[in-house]
Amino acid sequence: MPYFDAASSLPLHPVARQALLAALDEGWADPSRLHREGRRARLLLDAAREAAAEAVGCRPDELSFASSGTRALHTGIAGALAGRRRTGRHLVVSAVEHSAVLHAARAHEADGGTVEEVPVDRTGRVAADGFGAALRGDTALACLQSANHEVGTEQPVAEVAEVCAAAGVPLLVDAAQSLPWGPVAGDWSLLAASAHKWGGPGGVGLLAVRKGVRFAPPPPVDERESGRSPGFADLPAIVAAAASLRAVRAEAAAEAVRLRALVERIRARVPELVPDVEVVGDPVRRLPHVVTFSCLYVDGEALLHALDRAGFSVSSGSSCTSSTLVPSHVLRAMGVLSEGNIRVSLPPGTAREDVDAFLTVLPEAVRQVRAHLDAPAAAQPREPEETAPEERREPEETEDAGVPSLTVDSLGKRCPVPVIELARVIDRVPVGGTVVLLADDEAARLDVPAWCEMRGHEYLGAEGHTYRVRRRA
Amino acid sequence: MPYFDAASSLPLHPVARQALLAALDEGWADPSRLHREGRRARLLLDAAREAAAEAVGCRPDELSFASSGTRALHTGIAGALAGRRRTGRHLVVSAVEHSAVLHAARAHEADGGTVEEVPVDRTGRVAADGFGAALRGDTALACLQSANHEVGTEQPVAEVAEVCAAAGVPLLVDAAQSLPWGPVAGDWSLLAASAHKWGGPGGVGLLAVRKGVRFAPPPPVDERESGRSPGFADLPAIVAAAASLRAVRAEAAAEAVRLRALVERIRARVPELVPDVEVVGDPVRRLPHVVTFSCLYVDGEALLHALDRAGFSVSSGSSCTSSTLVPSHVLRAMGVLSEGNIRVSLPPGTAREDVDAFLTVLPEAVRQVRAHLDAPAAAQPREPEETAPEERREPEETEDAGVPSLTVDSLGKRCPVPVIELARVIDRVPVGGTVVLLADDEAARLDVPAWCEMRGHEYLGAEGHTYRVRRRA
Repeated sequence: MPYFDAASSLPLHPVARQALLAALDEGWADPSRLHREGRRARLLLDAAREAAAEAVGCRPDELSFASSGTRALHTGIAGALAGRRRTGRHLVVSAVEHSAVLHAARAHEADGGTVEEVPVDRTGRVAADGFGAALRGDTALACLQSANHEVGTEQPVAEVAEVCAAAGVPLLVDAAQSLPWGPVAGDWSLLAASAHKWGGPGGVGLLAVRKGVRFAPPPPVDERESGRSPGFADLPAIVAAAASLRAVRAEAAAEAVRLRALVERIRARVPELVPDVEVVGDPVRRLPHVVTFSCLYVDGEALLHALDRAGFSVSSGSSCTSSTLVPSHVLRAMGVLSEGNIRVSLPPGTAREDVDAFLTVLPEAVRQVRAHLDAPAAAQPREPEETAPEERREPEETEDAGVPSLTVDSLGKRCPVPVIELARVIDRVPVGGTVVLLADDEAARLDVPAWCEMRGHEYLGAEGHTYRVRRRA
Repeated sequence: MPYFDAASSLPLHPVARQALLAALDEGWADPSRLHREGRRARLLLDAAREAAAEAVGCRPDELSFASSGTRALHTGIAGALAGRRRTGRHLVVSAVEHSAVLHAARAHEADGGTVEEVPVDRTGRVAADGFGAALRGDTALACLQSANHEVGTEQPVAEVAEVCAAAGVPLLVDAAQSLPWGPVAGDWSLLAASAHKWGGPGGVGLLAVRKGVRFAPPPPVDERESGRSPGFADLPAIVAAAASLRAVRAEAAAEAVRLRALVERIRARVPELVPDVEVVGDPVRRLPHVVTFSCLYVDGEALLHALDRAGFSVSSGSSCTSSTLVPSHVLRAMGVLSEGNIRVSLPPGTAREDVDAFLTVLPEAVRQVRAHLDAPAAAQPREPEETAPEERREPEETEDAGVPSLTVDSLGKRCPVPVIELARVIDRVPVGGTVVLLADDEAARLDVPAWCEMRGHEYLGAEGHTYRVRRRA
């Protein structure tokens, strides 16, 4: 039963398990106590800090343990913003940061600060000069991930760090996805990461703050972890996190080569095996283990369940799989198709046979989901006769600025239905004619233009819930 | 090597260890994911929530897991204050709350709120009517611990909850020390606790918020734990925490009786075995496993180390054992002696022989520390000839408001030296004469009046670093 959701969380690494078990007996006392149990715990904590700092590439006294990667990001951002409050309250983030960064940015805005999101290109990558252009005299902090968690695209962190240094702005790097593969290059100021992304336990994050970076940890503060993480931590989990980071790093170079080949294979084969697929993310500058694609006319949740039944655990950025019913902000920022979105992220040790099995199962899973949705066939759209007429509102024939036009009412229907209904009628207007699509599903804003690009039609834009598309072929 | 610091942290309970090991294999995935690994994790999380809620005495949907007891308190206080911001920004806390509560109160003050500390009596207990008197029309929240972590005194939570309910003010109960022994009685609104106090892992806190309590979790918020604990948690640790709480509760009634008898024995024997000792905390209404006493003329850190060398791990609220060199705020609020302070907190299963061994070792450990400090003997103060003269400034003979007076300069000297120097000279003024003590150590403010009370002299008060004492006998 292959688990292909490594970018979400990994099973405990064997070394983490060993270290955890060993530390359960030695590491339960309060490391700030003076008695022998406390001193023993302190030794373990110090050793874990040494090991983690070495892997991060910082001094042990620059590194604190947080109760999650999310907390490390929240604390890092709040602390750096507070430390530079006199400079200003302008925060720069990329548009594809992890939600933890964006949530912290929202909190900063609610508190009166300003936030600027730097856009990305279609591969999900920021441009260093574009990032630099967002920096201002009152910019207190800039945040950039080392690599994207949904599509695997690596960011130009070293170049952006240079640009930030030149502007005198500290750069916080969210290294959650890349740290298991190696240290972050470049002159960053703060760095955050999360142990369960490398086979450490949950509930352990890292926050590095370089000496000299102004930092005022958000209150309430206590005496633990340089004031950066209040409360009694799970020391055995910290020990396990540090031990597994070392272990994972020892295997990283060889494993990266191996997984990169498997991911290459998925990137190449999926579009051959499945019609109407868009593989997203930078094809070269990317994490070794992540590949993401979107399937036209597919309900992401249904595909997720179909793959789950077939034994494959993956994740999706489609709107139907999110609690808020909006597509992933990463896919939105990239402007790529969000429907039928699947992220495959391979754990270390993934067997080639499992990838092959996935490639065997995927086409049929997609076909079934499409058949269930009565989706148009690839290349040749078919007539929508199969479904009972009462379920469909007949498109209304009219004229639109002097050209023949059809209006399709998809109001109240969820992704991918509006795009399917659009695809069904496009051939019923002549080339040059338009289709007006009424859709109030959030995903349509992303998927209608993406569909136009994939199909070669002209996207004329949207006003409110009204989308206009011109048939081109 | 007996560990008598249970109130600080406990070794992992065997049931916690078993549950942890079992959950390591099943509970590593993200419980919010739709795939089978995610669903399995979700099942574990739901079961842990059920079990913990039952032990707390609340509904599962009222309970969230936090990354520590401290975080649970911080979130509970900030969330309740924000939820009732329209009512006002007045916060009431007892003066002997855990530092996590007081840190949150300081943060609230720094943010423009007001805080009122309800004083305690010499046993460390608030009066329900005194607590009620602090509630105002603009009081957003009141906080009271179920039992004190340093001296074991139980608070009148049920009565205070009634008073708060009558005033329409939610009551947050810090149940960290008492929850292993039983649910908190009374109609509380919010409750926080910490798993490592009952043999669960570190890094797991509980926060219960009763339905109907206005609550706005502090930002940044994510979708986990009802928005009350952002970030990916350590699920196996949560499972272990819930399992061990059940296990500890099953043994609680019998173990409470057994430990209470051992603590009685310590409370009775210590003053018989060691001269000049003050046993503090309520003699009856207290936790079964905690006993605290202070030893005159003793350096708490030195005594801690002496006991540690003899194989006993205890803790201390003396100023010399704190990083800030101030005595515990609990002892200060109680107005009891802080020097030579020792807290003995017995873990479940403590053998009577170990307690007896402690009682054998303690008198000699205290004697040695006193001898090293050249402390006055009990009852008959001796002359200070043994120490080289250059280490002592000779007391200056003068008159003070017409009566003979001696001035002792203890500036720059740390607890317990100022009190020792005071004790050394008290017999050199006639009965009715005064000693003026110059001392800038924070502990003097507590220990000089406490010494006067223990010795039957009259404490005339302090101005700045100048203390005045009248000899009575």
